[in-house]
Amino acid sequence: ELLSELVAFFQPKVLSGKRVLVTAGPTSEPIDPVRVITNRSSGKMGYAVAQAAREAGAHVVLVSGPTALPTPYGVARINVDSARQMHAAVMAEARGADVFISVAAVADWHVVNASDNKLKKNAAGSAPQLTFAPNPDILADVARMTAGPWCVGFAAETENLLEYAEAKRRRKGVPMLVGNLAQQAMNADLTELVMLDDAGHRQLPELSKIDAARQLIRAIAPRLPD
Amino acid sequence: ELLSELVAFFQPKVLSGKRVLVTAGPTSEPIDPVRVITNRSSGKMGYAVAQAAREAGAHVVLVSGPTALPTPYGVARINVDSARQMHAAVMAEARGADVFISVAAVADWHVVNASDNKLKKNAAGSAPQLTFAPNPDILADVARMTAGPWCVGFAAETENLLEYAEAKRRRKGVPMLVGNLAQQAMNADLTELVMLDDAGHRQLPELSKIDAARQLIRAIAPRLPD
Repeated sequence: ELLSELVAFFQPKVLSGKRVLVTAGPTSEPIDPVRVITNRSSGKMGYAVAQAAREAGAHVVLVSGPTALPTPYGVARINVDSARQMHAAVMAEARGADVFISVAAVADWHVVNASDNKLKKNAAGSAPQLTFAPNPDILADVARMTAGPWCVGFAAETENLLEYAEAKRRRKGVPMLVGNLAQQAMNADLTELVMLDDAGHRQLPELSKIDAARQLIRAIAPRLPD
Repeated sequence: ELLSELVAFFQPKVLSGKRVLVTAGPTSEPIDPVRVITNRSSGKMGYAVAQAAREAGAHVVLVSGPTALPTPYGVARINVDSARQMHAAVMAEARGADVFISVAAVADWHVVNASDNKLKKNAAGSAPQLTFAPNPDILADVARMTAGPWCVGFAAETENLLEYAEAKRRRKGVPMLVGNLAQQAMNADLTELVMLDDAGHRQLPELSKIDAARQLIRAIAPRLPD
């Protein structure tokens, strides 16, 4: 405990004075007041990235979907539920940020016909008819901003990781994308990240999420514009 | 902290030697490896009921959906994800139980066409076509057992609480049902329960979930068959 605090204290201050915006956790898309569609995301990776950015001297704002995690020391946290709420919070904060790191597992769709009251099973036991609409693309919208922050995306894939991650990097128009295998990363304390940019990719070994986040912050810092 | 441990220690041992089976938390129904349908349930009420039953001298087995809560002292916990897994775990444990208290927010449906790999957004951005099938009714199946445990159900409703809760009590065929308002109870530490049985209903005041659970255990104990 003391050791980990010392290690944190002595992290190089590579983001000193920078303003970093991080998203973390899942989003929660209501079906009715008690049922939701969500992602298997503990939020641990995004919270580790927020902590690592703070340790590196940055001012950090963390926009978080529902998680059970404590806010990292010195980090300003904004809680949201749905992808549309996360989009609004991020767009409001992104203007003043130097770096945006999108770690949240954002739902691609929301339920258009969500009910204000709890859906009852009817006599026939028939299932609900859900209609979906696409959510806004938070990362792509920030990447499109004029004079917006330097953007890093995350991709959790279950297969074809490098191929899907590089395709996502180009589609979103961001300089760096970080890939991991969803089956390894979800709710785990260890992760194997791969960082992709214009120069290719760099595979990190299996690390604790905080150590992987520190490596990521050290890789981001020298790439930022002055 | 010390006070609460003393209070716990001095709870009347009204369930001494009884075997109590409790379910808690949400269930998680996969859409694909990263997306799930679930309920806004923290598991706090079910964990409080398990703790209160243990404090009252019972042997307690807690079948829990995914939560971030610590297991109450002295309680045996079985972790499950889906409603079908919870059903299997409960049916295996129910034979030896004297009391079954079903607090979990169990999904009514699961996705039949869940994908083994993460669903990709296609070029048209079209939403997934989900097909649902009903989950087994855990409480009703236990209530139907020959020489099964004495059953208590929970109902979280957003409206018409007494009416819906009494209808649920009769439909499930259980001697006691506990109702609460979903908008008040979800993720909160306080709750207002109403207990319904053949004799009518009894409204509890707003209490911490552990105090409400202790009241519930004291109400259950004298109703059990010898």
